[in-house]
Amino acid sequence: MKITREKWEKNFSEWFDWVLREGEFYDYGRYPVKGVGIWLPYGFKIRRAVTEIIRNLLDSTGHEEVLFPLLIPEDLLRKESEHIRGFEGEVYWVTRGGSENLDVMLALRPTSETSITFMESLWISSYKQLPKKYYQIVSVFRYETKATRPMIRLRELTTFKEAHTVHESYDDAERQVKEAIDIYKKFFDELGIPYIISKRPDWDKFAGAIYTIAFDTIMPDSRVLQIGTVHHLGQHFSKVFDFKIQKKDGSLDYPHQTSYGISDRVIAALIALNGDDHGPVLNPKIAPIKVVIIPIPAKDEETNKKIMDYCDNISAELNKNSISNIVDKDPDRTPGEKYYIWELKGVPLRIEIGQREVNNNTVFVKRRDTFQGAAIQRTELVPKILDLLSQVAEDLRDNAREFMQAKIKLVEDVEQAKAMLENRSGVVEVPWCGDNNCGLKLEELTNSRVLGSPYDSPKDVSNKVCVVCKKPAKDTLRLAKTY
Amino acid sequence: MKITREKWEKNFSEWFDWVLREGEFYDYGRYPVKGVGIWLPYGFKIRRAVTEIIRNLLDSTGHEEVLFPLLIPEDLLRKESEHIRGFEGEVYWVTRGGSENLDVMLALRPTSETSITFMESLWISSYKQLPKKYYQIVSVFRYETKATRPMIRLRELTTFKEAHTVHESYDDAERQVKEAIDIYKKFFDELGIPYIISKRPDWDKFAGAIYTIAFDTIMPDSRVLQIGTVHHLGQHFSKVFDFKIQKKDGSLDYPHQTSYGISDRVIAALIALNGDDHGPVLNPKIAPIKVVIIPIPAKDEETNKKIMDYCDNISAELNKNSISNIVDKDPDRTPGEKYYIWELKGVPLRIEIGQREVNNNTVFVKRRDTFQGAAIQRTELVPKILDLLSQVAEDLRDNAREFMQAKIKLVEDVEQAKAMLENRSGVVEVPWCGDNNCGLKLEELTNSRVLGSPYDSPKDVSNKVCVVCKKPAKDTLRLAKTY
Repeated sequence: MKITREKWEKNFSEWFDWVLREGEFYDYGRYPVKGVGIWLPYGFKIRRAVTEIIRNLLDSTGHEEVLFPLLIPEDLLRKESEHIRGFEGEVYWVTRGGSENLDVMLALRPTSETSITFMESLWISSYKQLPKKYYQIVSVFRYETKATRPMIRLRELTTFKEAHTVHESYDDAERQVKEAIDIYKKFFDELGIPYIISKRPDWDKFAGAIYTIAFDTIMPDSRVLQIGTVHHLGQHFSKVFDFKIQKKDGSLDYPHQTSYGISDRVIAALIALNGDDHGPVLNPKIAPIKVVIIPIPAKDEETNKKIMDYCDNISAELNKNSISNIVDKDPDRTPGEKYYIWELKGVPLRIEIGQREVNNNTVFVKRRDTFQGAAIQRTELVPKILDLLSQVAEDLRDNAREFMQAKIKLVEDVEQAKAMLENRSGVVEVPWCGDNNCGLKLEELTNSRVLGSPYDSPKDVSNKVCVVCKKPAKDTLRLAKTY
Repeated sequence: MKITREKWEKNFSEWFDWVLREGEFYDYGRYPVKGVGIWLPYGFKIRRAVTEIIRNLLDSTGHEEVLFPLLIPEDLLRKESEHIRGFEGEVYWVTRGGSENLDVMLALRPTSETSITFMESLWISSYKQLPKKYYQIVSVFRYETKATRPMIRLRELTTFKEAHTVHESYDDAERQVKEAIDIYKKFFDELGIPYIISKRPDWDKFAGAIYTIAFDTIMPDSRVLQIGTVHHLGQHFSKVFDFKIQKKDGSLDYPHQTSYGISDRVIAALIALNGDDHGPVLNPKIAPIKVVIIPIPAKDEETNKKIMDYCDNISAELNKNSISNIVDKDPDRTPGEKYYIWELKGVPLRIEIGQREVNNNTVFVKRRDTFQGAAIQRTELVPKILDLLSQVAEDLRDNAREFMQAKIKLVEDVEQAKAMLENRSGVVEVPWCGDNNCGLKLEELTNSRVLGSPYDSPKDVSNKVCVVCKKPAKDTLRLAKTY
């Protein structure tokens, strides 16, 4: 079978909408509030697997899970002036309770730096309590004025994992930034999501941060999707909340903070990054169903009965080895119709069982990603299936990484950069002098967005010049069309 | 040691506030929005253990977890007239996004029957898809005008587990009500929370239900706390949402629905129901830390070092057997201060280790509930600890049940009922003719609340008469002071 990726690559938006709804991951666009979606049972299981992975990574590095209120009083949210300037345009406000007007407007949290810092100022008073690392997984709200998209640009982000940490010094907080980056690397590696890490330019950092480090990936349509951010907050919030601690040397000072977050977009990337015109291919590590077993009916009842029993035995053996699976026995659908729906759901392996398999004591296994099939001896079922699942996970990760790497190019000319960006080439990296004005100018000239400079893999730019001002380059700057 | 329960029983409200805050379960009353609390790391772990238990019970009975939007447009919420009449006074309304006024006001969900039925009408069209059982664990909002209380009466309920089911017939839905009751029985039994089940009177059923079955427990102050409800919704919601299905016989009709929920109150009961003036005693099944190990310092450094090493070995052995534990090595606090805080946190077992234990190769274990202590041979550590943990769980459950049973009394006179209720006697059950008017009259005469009639253990009322009208009794009615 030839694998086509026309719809996936060229009409990605449509492909994604189709997959989410028809594959029953997520219902979007029918509920009568713009920019909100419904996690359907199948999608919810993926969401749960993903949150388990991040929870384990955070719990094992000394983070503590908490749960803060959704509602933030207006005066609290307005305390940090850069912060509120950044969010003001997109805050939902509760103004009424029952038939009464509220005395103080309540914001639906767009993020929780303000409410958490307020409480930390009551809880933490000494360096002995530091570092303190909290996180929560919650809904946050953004009254987006841009076009909304399922899982990608939402008004209710339902899977916002936000971490908030407190430290004695600037350097301690900077070390925490590094730990957060390590945690996110492990997280995305585990999920097979490739990424580049950039230091966001000053004009695009988090509202209230000293600097922001961001994880981006490249979607099938070559647009860049921000999938994680880490912020050094310095003393911006601790100062306005008059949050002081006693330091080791006995003096009183404002502590330093960081925050870092991921959202539903991780799951969007997970579903989108490996796919074809049949639908997505789910990474076996998070696939709710790893194997679908499809009986191929024979002409007589007796053989059919044998086939079904055989399917049930195979299923039971997989279950016993914790390999989640399902036998699709629907009598109203043909095997072909079943292939269609389970491919659309991205189940990594399919087992087909007909008379031949029963007679030969084998199963026929087909990989969702390559559509390669092979017969497996019944006696070797479990080890072979486990092998295939690991192989699929590995191949998906490698393919996604190659796809992304092929879409990152270094060029030394603005016009060329612009043409490539318009031509959906992905990320274009250019030599840069380090001056913000040249960066802003680049966004204008190329009609694209500056992602920032490479965080952990700076390019050698000796002998190169800034593509804008022609002065000696100090670094490179990444440009892209973004979500 | 003599166990006192003065504060626990006589000043329960203060006791509870003190435990939640000083024990670092839940921060309440300091965040600048009324009626909302913060789950602190220790409390959050209990919350997580509780939600895991209910998830497993629901998943294993064919329920599917989903996640619906928080925001419900005004017209959707107003569709079912009884429903909105019931909730109208306590809905929070979002009226602004950024600096714009919204065209349609958006409610923060008080519960999700309307939004879920709306989507079900798009998803479900045939009896073949039934029964359908969804659930979600979410925050819901109630603009309470009554005095709020931590975990018990909140404006943001953060742990609202709501299940919503769809069925072909009234009887199928009624069977589902029974299944839900069975699930909740298992849930509360597992947690060791005793309950009585009552059919709520018509005037106190869920807004939009045909009838409501409720689980109540009795708190230390003898007031009754509703901890779970199950509603038969009939066709009330399916009709107003024009939600029709094809039935087995080919005809089109509105399906029947049920819904059932539990909330943060379960955790309130869990923390409150077993306690004394030192704090709560947590059920080992949900205790985040099952054993606290406290070193008793000796006079010389060398012995101290041996004691610490011994503590670490004990801890490692418990860990290896998945018995969560902690060694409290804080050098700034005395053993007595440590006892105080870990008792307040309700850790079920304490191990004290001093020179004697090291020399004898034993540990000294003390139960939090009875304060009984005993030496255990090092070689028998794990089986003995596991034994004690089961024993504590069992004793807590039995004690809580006895405490509750002792507070339920059958009387046959209104004045006596009133006096008992005023005297904090718990639940008073009286013979009743079955007429709602007599029930309403009873609430007035006794200045209390009717919980309803016993659901699964009707009393024999032959030869008894209604305490109000003196006509022959058909049933009993339960009365209580409630939260």
